Amino acid sequence: MEEQETLLLEIIAAIKNEDTHTLRQFLDEIHPYDMAQALLQLDEDERVLFHKLTDEELADLIEELDYEEQQSLLQKLGPARGIRIIEKMAPDDAVDYLGELEESERKEIISRLNPAFAADINQLLRYPENTAGGLMTTEFFVLYATDTVERAIQRLRELAPDAESAYYLYVIDEKHQLTGVISIRELIVAPPETLVEQIMSERVVSVPVEMDQEEVARTMSNYGFLAVPVVKGNKMVGVITVDDAIDVLEEEASEDMMKFGGITGTDAGMQDLSIGPLKSAMGRIPWLVLLLGVGIMAGNIIAFFEDTLDAVVVLAVFIPMIAGMAGNTGTQSLAVVVRGLTMGQFKGKDVWRLIRREAVVGVFIGLVNGLIISIVAALWQKSLMLGFVIGLSLSVTLFFATLAGTIVPLIMAKMKIDPAFASGPFITTINDLVGLTIYFTVATLFMQYLI
Amino acid sequence: MEEQETLLLEIIAAIKNEDTHTLRQFLDEIHPYDMAQALLQLDEDERVLFHKLTDEELADLIEELDYEEQQSLLQKLGPARGIRIIEKMAPDDAVDYLGELEESERKEIISRLNPAFAADINQLLRYPENTAGGLMTTEFFVLYATDTVERAIQRLRELAPDAESAYYLYVIDEKHQLTGVISIRELIVAPPETLVEQIMSERVVSVPVEMDQEEVARTMSNYGFLAVPVVKGNKMVGVITVDDAIDVLEEEASEDMMKFGGITGTDAGMQDLSIGPLKSAMGRIPWLVLLLGVGIMAGNIIAFFEDTLDAVVVLAVFIPMIAGMAGNTGTQSLAVVVRGLTMGQFKGKDVWRLIRREAVVGVFIGLVNGLIISIVAALWQKSLMLGFVIGLSLSVTLFFATLAGTIVPLIMAKMKIDPAFASGPFITTINDLVGLTIYFTVATLFMQYLI
Repeated sequence: MEEQETLLLEIIAAIKNEDTHTLRQFLDEIHPYDMAQALLQLDEDERVLFHKLTDEELADLIEELDYEEQQSLLQKLGPARGIRIIEKMAPDDAVDYLGELEESERKEIISRLNPAFAADINQLLRYPENTAGGLMTTEFFVLYATDTVERAIQRLRELAPDAESAYYLYVIDEKHQLTGVISIRELIVAPPETLVEQIMSERVVSVPVEMDQEEVARTMSNYGFLAVPVVKGNKMVGVITVDDAIDVLEEEASEDMMKFGGITGTDAGMQDLSIGPLKSAMGRIPWLVLLLGVGIMAGNIIAFFEDTLDAVVVLAVFIPMIAGMAGNTGTQSLAVVVRGLTMGQFKGKDVWRLIRREAVVGVFIGLVNGLIISIVAALWQKSLMLGFVIGLSLSVTLFFATLAGTIVPLIMAKMKIDPAFASGPFITTINDLVGLTIYFTVATLFMQYLI
Repeated sequence: MEEQETLLLEIIAAIKNEDTHTLRQFLDEIHPYDMAQALLQLDEDERVLFHKLTDEELADLIEELDYEEQQSLLQKLGPARGIRIIEKMAPDDAVDYLGELEESERKEIISRLNPAFAADINQLLRYPENTAGGLMTTEFFVLYATDTVERAIQRLRELAPDAESAYYLYVIDEKHQLTGVISIRELIVAPPETLVEQIMSERVVSVPVEMDQEEVARTMSNYGFLAVPVVKGNKMVGVITVDDAIDVLEEEASEDMMKFGGITGTDAGMQDLSIGPLKSAMGRIPWLVLLLGVGIMAGNIIAFFEDTLDAVVVLAVFIPMIAGMAGNTGTQSLAVVVRGLTMGQFKGKDVWRLIRREAVVGVFIGLVNGLIISIVAALWQKSLMLGFVIGLSLSVTLFFATLAGTIVPLIMAKMKIDPAFASGPFITTINDLVGLTIYFTVATLFMQYLI
């Protein structure tokens, strides 16, 4: 990839020197992604040279940018040119951009697009963003079942579809019903006079237009598909390509991570720096306030045992250790379960296998850590009995905490609540309560030996 | 996808009824992934009907299975048939399977493969598993720069390469140097007498054989590539397809989640149920013991302030709340930063923007939560001063905890330590220490007003 970095530097140099000739040479050869990277590394005033690109080149480039960058570039190019560029974009990318705009601005732009493109856009905007319909493009190429191979190749030549959608060719009948699929390779190796329906595969995996985008992405990933057709009834209405599926999987992993960290919000894409501090804080404060409530409950447990604590103040020394460790081991189990659930594992009898395994893990973890802390505590506070109380409490706590970290997300999944919401902080705080209750109960039971 | 589930049930019914005829009909049409799903839902003794499949069909099926299932099926088919099936697998999938075996068993199998296939396998086994070389397949189709389009299409027809590698056609010169790329579509729409080198794109993005697999996957995802050629020097030695890149991205997200949860281990694929409880516990105990040590340090802080605590025992009531909240807010920032770093964000000046934003977020979060807890604490313990001490401590703690959750992973990334290792439990426990120190320092300062 060093070659790519050198290339980037060369492009940037050409732009800074306003060397339009060199830039033009690059444009014919390089990928729009590289061009977008070059643009992002330039200051606003250095970006004016990009205005000399053709509308098609700018459309390709803009597809690679984030919404904020898209908007800033389109605004600088002026409304008339902006319209021409949007018309050159892939419909699904154009919809992603337009979907982010204020409704009045969106309607204004759409009213100025050419009617055919505007109709496509309006149709796509009607599908919820997180469904197959919101992900698909309506620009696809189909073959007719009753065409000969020769005719089909002829059509392919004439229409020269975008590379993006042309790895599999979907076959439809006269009613626009999806009836088969064939790869370009199968088409060109077949005898010219054969009918498409004779060589196509009739079992096409398709997704309904209303399917959740994560399910679409996971289907494509499971089958190793590069594209999947989208149907409404049996009628083919669009195509989803694997690059969009990858974006969905990435977004899903980000969301899991955010929820796991205890961050809520509609898109939870908090790693995006364009989200300001106030909005970012608003996405985090609800959980924190909830957890503050749980923290007060933990305080109640300690208040309940205040007599024990007053008699043996040294017990307070181990409060953070007990609470912390309960949270830590619970988070470990949680990570295992949440990721497994996201990946579509743990079905049927696997659930019991998982719970049994985590229970045994909890016993191991409890024994090892309990033994260590009992020795440390006994030596440090010079009390064998204190060592015993702390070690026993920690062992029991870790066992329950491991199980809680396993079972809580599984129950959530069963109740159709996203298990990632059993986020780290949530399990941590629940386990704090459990740990403190066990600790002070054990300590109170053995109180007479501690004083 | 209901259609797929119906299909699965039909296949399973056909197998249970030993209806070989129906099964054969399905086999011609369905995707190996569906066949593999059917197999997994059957008991061991019901799987014998699969033995009637052809070697090719079994090879396709086995590519879709996990290692344990692959091994169990191949063992039942016997060694001679196993060899024939392995020879029919894609070299990269065969290597993934063989790589998991004991060395002696692997060598035994390779020695019985046909020499050409064995040579491919041995070459692939030489590349580390987590590099481009370990990910690529050596089975690819190339065009010659000096061929005409007609001749190239002729070659394509004759060799009929696997669909997997035939979306882009890479072009090499007489020295096997990678010189260009062309899509099948571009080839078939070009005039037959044109030379390949006249219409190919000369700027091919390729990856070196030793590149880390995550970098490969991210490159493919950025460019939206369906395949990328792998080079050694300039010589083309393999191809990586997007389905393998997706697997790498999924694995990476799993690993981040595990590290975030405080689970170590070479592959950290703990959501895999075939990992037993002892091994699973061993992957978690190191962190827990480390964090146990930190927990004891937290105890030391409390021990240091034992006089304060002895005088105002009620301070203990708020220990878990202060420690817990410090951990919670730190984990939130951590999730944002770790995910952003994984996605390749936060370069250059973005780092400062991020730190500034998180600092402001920390102030918001601190003020809101500090205000709430000061009112609650004042009312609950009927002490305005206690409310003030707790509220002030929590505000300051949350500000520092948010910053720590941001800065620690950034420093780790700078030091080339995987920032995901600044895992939830680690930041949580560090922030416990900070929180407790701030809390008891503030309390000691205002001590005279609390008694």
